[in-house]
Amino acid sequence: MKMKLYCMGESGNSYKAALPLELSGLAWEPVWVDFFGGETRSAEFRKNINALGEVPLLIDGDLKLAQSGVIQSYVTEKTGQFGGGNSEERREVQMWVLWDNHKLSSQAGVTRFMMNFLPPEKRPEPVINFMLGRLKGVYAVLNEALKGREWLVGDAPTMADFSCCGYLYYPEPFGFERKEWPEIDRWLGNIAALDGWKHPYDLMPGSPSDRAK
Amino acid sequence: MKMKLYCMGESGNSYKAALPLELSGLAWEPVWVDFFGGETRSAEFRKNINALGEVPLLIDGDLKLAQSGVIQSYVTEKTGQFGGGNSEERREVQMWVLWDNHKLSSQAGVTRFMMNFLPPEKRPEPVINFMLGRLKGVYAVLNEALKGREWLVGDAPTMADFSCCGYLYYPEPFGFERKEWPEIDRWLGNIAALDGWKHPYDLMPGSPSDRAK
Repeated sequence: MKMKLYCMGESGNSYKAALPLELSGLAWEPVWVDFFGGETRSAEFRKNINALGEVPLLIDGDLKLAQSGVIQSYVTEKTGQFGGGNSEERREVQMWVLWDNHKLSSQAGVTRFMMNFLPPEKRPEPVINFMLGRLKGVYAVLNEALKGREWLVGDAPTMADFSCCGYLYYPEPFGFERKEWPEIDRWLGNIAALDGWKHPYDLMPGSPSDRAK
Repeated sequence: MKMKLYCMGESGNSYKAALPLELSGLAWEPVWVDFFGGETRSAEFRKNINALGEVPLLIDGDLKLAQSGVIQSYVTEKTGQFGGGNSEERREVQMWVLWDNHKLSSQAGVTRFMMNFLPPEKRPEPVINFMLGRLKGVYAVLNEALKGREWLVGDAPTMADFSCCGYLYYPEPFGFERKEWPEIDRWLGNIAALDGWKHPYDLMPGSPSDRAK
């Protein structure tokens, strides 16, 4: 039976799980979650799907896994892929996944939400400007780390790459311009050139254009 | 030789590493970092200590580990402690550590910084209010998860507890009042009752009162 990933196309955190599921060749299918209709915040979702009130969530038989980093570890456990080649690399992968959750995806996600998915009159400009400032320092760390490297860890793609790229392919404005960060730009090209790679809006159901219909 | 943890008392993210180091009985010592004097943002610190420009950082011989969650995993690896009793518990521990980094410590840390460590005239009130609102939802998830439980995972303390409690013992105001969250309050009491437990300001050098001298 296919694994089911509760997700939606607009969620970079979901993409962090969906992309390695897809690239690893595991059998999985997305289950669209109506985040914009309030589904993840409903008592029913918290009771039956995920008590954390968030996507992604993976179901594999009796197993239910929340948090994209946990799902990534599960994919590595099942397939041996994308986890790093030795204990040093495995620690570096874990470091980048944690750093991404702490500094990058968390802040990029909320900034993109406020700038694009709130009605213009509800956008808190001082908060957006604050987050945009913090994110510049975060992109600088990532750009610097990628100098002279094809991948964040070792010489092959890992969950470090799939975590940190979570929000960076989205076309909506959130203060990230690929041309301002040449190393990140090149590295995003490397990931997108992997066999089977898909853009988040092609890999998971749900996108701003669907909601505009 | 003792392991060295680059840290400072005001850093809840450092506490997430220092507390399990201390409780596990490993030989370690803190190395105070002058965060408030700009040390973590200096080119020298990034070059010689941590390219991510942050604390904590652990040095054990030739090994250098960044991100508190990586240091926690290393403590578990070395001592067999606090990692969860089986594969299901290990995944739950990983989930809470990631959730904490994504939702709790990241937002509580920056909010506490803005409310207490910036000069009053530089405090961005709209940003603080936004973060305080988000944090309420985060505390609610944690409080709910602790209902009927002594510990977040299984029936013993784990890195899940030591990660999520990172900022919650600090006395400075940042929108967290123990009495408003009875389950969190009780659980913080459980952690503080562990043999060898220390408050962050007692476990690591550096505190607001030191800087007031």
